[in-house]
Amino acid sequence: MTLTDLKRFLIGEPFPTSREVHERLDKIRALAVFASDPISSNAYATEAIMSVLIVLGSGALSLTLPLGLAVAGLVVLVIASYIQTIFHYPDGGGAYTVAKDNLGTSASLVAAAALLTDYILTVSVSVSAGVRAVTSAFPQVFEYRILIALVAIAFITWINLRGVRESGTIFAIPTYAFVGGVLTVILIGLARYYGLFGAAPIPPVVDQVASEESLVGFAYIWLLLRAFAGGTTALTGIEAISNGVQAFKPPESRNAVVTMVAMGVMAMTLFVGITFLATHLKLVPHEAESILSQLARRVTGGGFLYYWVQLFTALILFLAANTGYQGFPQLSSFLAKDNYLPRWLHNRGDRLVFSAGILVLAVAAGIIVVIFRADEIAMLPLYALGVMLSFSISQSGMFRLMGRIAHLEPGQTMQTLVTEIHYESNARRKQVMNAFGALITGIVFLILVATKFVEGGWVFVLLIPALYYLFSTIHRHYENVSAALSTKGLTIEDVTSVADVVVVPIADVHRGTVRAIEYAKRLSRDVRALTIITSPEMEERLMRRWNRFPEITADVTLVTIAYDYRDILNPLVDYITSVNEEEFPDQITTIVVPEFVPEHASERILHNQTANRLRARLKQYKDIVIIDVPFHLDSQI
Amino acid sequence: MTLTDLKRFLIGEPFPTSREVHERLDKIRALAVFASDPISSNAYATEAIMSVLIVLGSGALSLTLPLGLAVAGLVVLVIASYIQTIFHYPDGGGAYTVAKDNLGTSASLVAAAALLTDYILTVSVSVSAGVRAVTSAFPQVFEYRILIALVAIAFITWINLRGVRESGTIFAIPTYAFVGGVLTVILIGLARYYGLFGAAPIPPVVDQVASEESLVGFAYIWLLLRAFAGGTTALTGIEAISNGVQAFKPPESRNAVVTMVAMGVMAMTLFVGITFLATHLKLVPHEAESILSQLARRVTGGGFLYYWVQLFTALILFLAANTGYQGFPQLSSFLAKDNYLPRWLHNRGDRLVFSAGILVLAVAAGIIVVIFRADEIAMLPLYALGVMLSFSISQSGMFRLMGRIAHLEPGQTMQTLVTEIHYESNARRKQVMNAFGALITGIVFLILVATKFVEGGWVFVLLIPALYYLFSTIHRHYENVSAALSTKGLTIEDVTSVADVVVVPIADVHRGTVRAIEYAKRLSRDVRALTIITSPEMEERLMRRWNRFPEITADVTLVTIAYDYRDILNPLVDYITSVNEEEFPDQITTIVVPEFVPEHASERILHNQTANRLRARLKQYKDIVIIDVPFHLDSQI
Repeated sequence: MTLTDLKRFLIGEPFPTSREVHERLDKIRALAVFASDPISSNAYATEAIMSVLIVLGSGALSLTLPLGLAVAGLVVLVIASYIQTIFHYPDGGGAYTVAKDNLGTSASLVAAAALLTDYILTVSVSVSAGVRAVTSAFPQVFEYRILIALVAIAFITWINLRGVRESGTIFAIPTYAFVGGVLTVILIGLARYYGLFGAAPIPPVVDQVASEESLVGFAYIWLLLRAFAGGTTALTGIEAISNGVQAFKPPESRNAVVTMVAMGVMAMTLFVGITFLATHLKLVPHEAESILSQLARRVTGGGFLYYWVQLFTALILFLAANTGYQGFPQLSSFLAKDNYLPRWLHNRGDRLVFSAGILVLAVAAGIIVVIFRADEIAMLPLYALGVMLSFSISQSGMFRLMGRIAHLEPGQTMQTLVTEIHYESNARRKQVMNAFGALITGIVFLILVATKFVEGGWVFVLLIPALYYLFSTIHRHYENVSAALSTKGLTIEDVTSVADVVVVPIADVHRGTVRAIEYAKRLSRDVRALTIITSPEMEERLMRRWNRFPEITADVTLVTIAYDYRDILNPLVDYITSVNEEEFPDQITTIVVPEFVPEHASERILHNQTANRLRARLKQYKDIVIIDVPFHLDSQI
Repeated sequence: MTLTDLKRFLIGEPFPTSREVHERLDKIRALAVFASDPISSNAYATEAIMSVLIVLGSGALSLTLPLGLAVAGLVVLVIASYIQTIFHYPDGGGAYTVAKDNLGTSASLVAAAALLTDYILTVSVSVSAGVRAVTSAFPQVFEYRILIALVAIAFITWINLRGVRESGTIFAIPTYAFVGGVLTVILIGLARYYGLFGAAPIPPVVDQVASEESLVGFAYIWLLLRAFAGGTTALTGIEAISNGVQAFKPPESRNAVVTMVAMGVMAMTLFVGITFLATHLKLVPHEAESILSQLARRVTGGGFLYYWVQLFTALILFLAANTGYQGFPQLSSFLAKDNYLPRWLHNRGDRLVFSAGILVLAVAAGIIVVIFRADEIAMLPLYALGVMLSFSISQSGMFRLMGRIAHLEPGQTMQTLVTEIHYESNARRKQVMNAFGALITGIVFLILVATKFVEGGWVFVLLIPALYYLFSTIHRHYENVSAALSTKGLTIEDVTSVADVVVVPIADVHRGTVRAIEYAKRLSRDVRALTIITSPEMEERLMRRWNRFPEITADVTLVTIAYDYRDILNPLVDYITSVNEEEFPDQITTIVVPEFVPEHASERILHNQTANRLRARLKQYKDIVIIDVPFHLDSQI
């Protein structure tokens, strides 16, 4: 089985480019593929608020619901803004494109750097959280957690490489099973809480927290802000759809918006439902059991439905990684298209997904998992920073765009850098909404930086400029290449002429070198066989064989150079460059290299690599052209 | 600092080939370089006999001296035989050459396989034993023992790569310090034992062994044989000088023989001295302290001299590895010269040593150290088997040679396969000695295989045929290559003609491709620019640019192939091979590949590797010649 066969077996047959539109996602699959991260946030977002408030004692937990509603309000704001983004930028690109079009390159690169970082962390954090669920159930595999996490990453990578449609099909079941399970728990909980349909009431919780602290003034507000910031983890992954509009079946924008709304409704229903019940059932966060588990156990009494929720919570935490697998390759393909990342990140692979981006993401996430030893708690300080920063930038961009639209007359149209804008009647109102969104997410970002700085947030603060620098360096390289290759003002006189000389380095006279010399004789009348003599025996043998074939060697100059060292590469290169630079300056010198090609690649180890090393060395010279004349074991010459 | 600078810094400036003879070893250095293994054997050889005899109770330990003398007798026999070998085979090669000349290829390859295995084990075992000495002194570094062993291997490798003369200088001090220290202990011990010069007598040892076993008949003889076999570990490394005759200053043979005799005298003086005193002082082997340490402590009372002996015992155990560093590269260079190993093992490196062999040895020994976790006790069952087998083969070969010499008349001379033999008056007597040596070493080999088979000796029994197969396969490959390259019966009509066509694969029209097309136009009137069209936009852009330069593109055929996948390698290769096989069968087809060469190698990651991948794919076709036309960023075209 060849490597190609193995690839076919793993990834499947390649799809033709024309099939691209058929491989796109319908709304059901799209929701599963894009929404796994925001939906899975419900496994911990409510708890993230409560675990801050608990400092004030269990009485303060009643603040969870208002804070949760505020988070939900923010989500609605952000989603509304992204719906505008999708309509105005139907080719996708989200925060990056919005910023590029409205705020300039720098802002767009910062947004992109923030999001790329966050997508990588989405994968590492989600997979590590999933592994924690596994190792909690089976503590004996704890020591293999890094390996398990890497296998999980490999698995999700594999599914994604097989194509977005296929991965949508595979990931749909756990996503919808989780949503259905939690929704059922919420409905039963509400029924029992309000005594509807004759449901039995839920037994009250015994208050477990003794110590209470009372904070006043700034400290109190700061704590509320931190609790709110904790709740905003529910927002991670929301923007992925706006990057991936082109992954939807036509009409792309409409389908993307419908999916985004469905995602928002679904995620917020669960979030508000969980938060409402957690508050009203007076649940208290503690280490041993998550809020969602407490809620499900209390509401269902611990039966089948409870285990269903637990199982699919673990699974969807794993699958939340998939949002990273949508966002990262899409966004990096936009950056690659604009020459800020290597261009091959813009190429679609065999199955029409951005395979290179998927693999880069998998490797990066794998490295982070190894560095942090699959401990997602240690990674969290870095997480969610990127998404908030990009939200804020994106909303600022939309604010600017709405401002430009507000200046249009009814019926008027204007071409921006990347899109076409039309008059809209309520642009000013939308602009206010965007300003509000930008402000809130900006404040949340600053809170996150401030509260998480010492725990690791500083890495993020260093990483963004580093990535920015990387993007700029790559961009400059491509600009230089493009300028150098440009045919502007090119005439035939500009082309370097070819020197009438061919050098053929040989170590011996055999069928391989004879073939090369004969080939060289077709190129020039001045063919020079170049040989480095390292011992008298070698010289004697070479001359004997050389003189045996006068019909071949007659018109060829034999250049012999005596050399008192063993590594003949230096004198070969010296002679060739002297021909190129002194004898024929500013012309192209041609080198014909006889190359022995063994039957099997493994046999290469049995032969000197002089030909390969010579080629590598000569590559640095501008005007040297190398011709490989292969000689196969079973060749005629 | 470039890689070359780093190499210069580590290894030193390269030596010219003409300096080879100046880099050779004088006798003082040669003894240090070659004899470290046989001399270091004294650290454990006596104990190896005693630890078998102790089964019979401490009374049986008095048998140690006669067995030790028998071993010493065997050493004399073997050395006498190798002195003959050195005189008859002054180009070196030891058991391998002797067997090749007298017993045929198969025997020589078996001897070579056995010795190569043993040299690798010499390194792993010695270094691990040295590390054990270190970790006994500093138990806290025990967990780093594998790392320490690898660093030690790297160090010895580094010294050896710097040249044999330099390593001789460095290794001389510990070797002579060990010999001097142990010799002083023996002399003081004898003086005190016999009460010479008024020396104080040595206090007697309390008998520590209670249990005694009494064996009769075969079991008793078997035990004596095993004790004797244990003592023969003193023989390991003796043959290295016979491989390395060419490492000596002229007169090579004479100097090698003098060194061999000196080594034998030195090693046997120590061995017999230690064995004599150990027996007469009634020392008993036990785990906590080695016999040599007991002896030194008892004789010196544990002062400065005792620590001197202990320190240099540890050091020389490390350095015994160096015998492997002499034997392996020398022997593998002989095998490589005869085409049984890759030819580059026969090339001398920058410092005139066989650098490739040194590195192969280091890697192999490192792998064994890692596999056995630096536990030399676990490696011992494999060790010493090879050296005994090669002794026996070598002596058999000398037996045969002496038989041939015995048939010569006085003054008569005969040319064998590799050497010239003359009449010798006492050839029959030498032949008897060789027969005896071959028989004894053969028996010892069989005893070793039998006693160590289950503990790991079976690996050796499998390894020798495996290496034999490897040698034969490599040999066959070189034979095939040589036959294919042979110019026997070659005429100019045999040379494949060159088709009048050049294919230039291009993805775009830019300065790089224009340069390649212009180059191609010099080679043929039928130049075809080949381009794979994957999207309508690409086709449109290409055609626009193509038509912009009629003076360049007028005589060139533009071949466009529409392709509905992204990886364009297959259609490129398909077109090129169809030109080669269908349009111009049995002719050489020329492909000109425009190649963009980035300024820094790291920038390669920013460009598609299509040119490199195409070259790799086309290499498997016999009659396709590839021309790389480089384009540098700062080039004129």
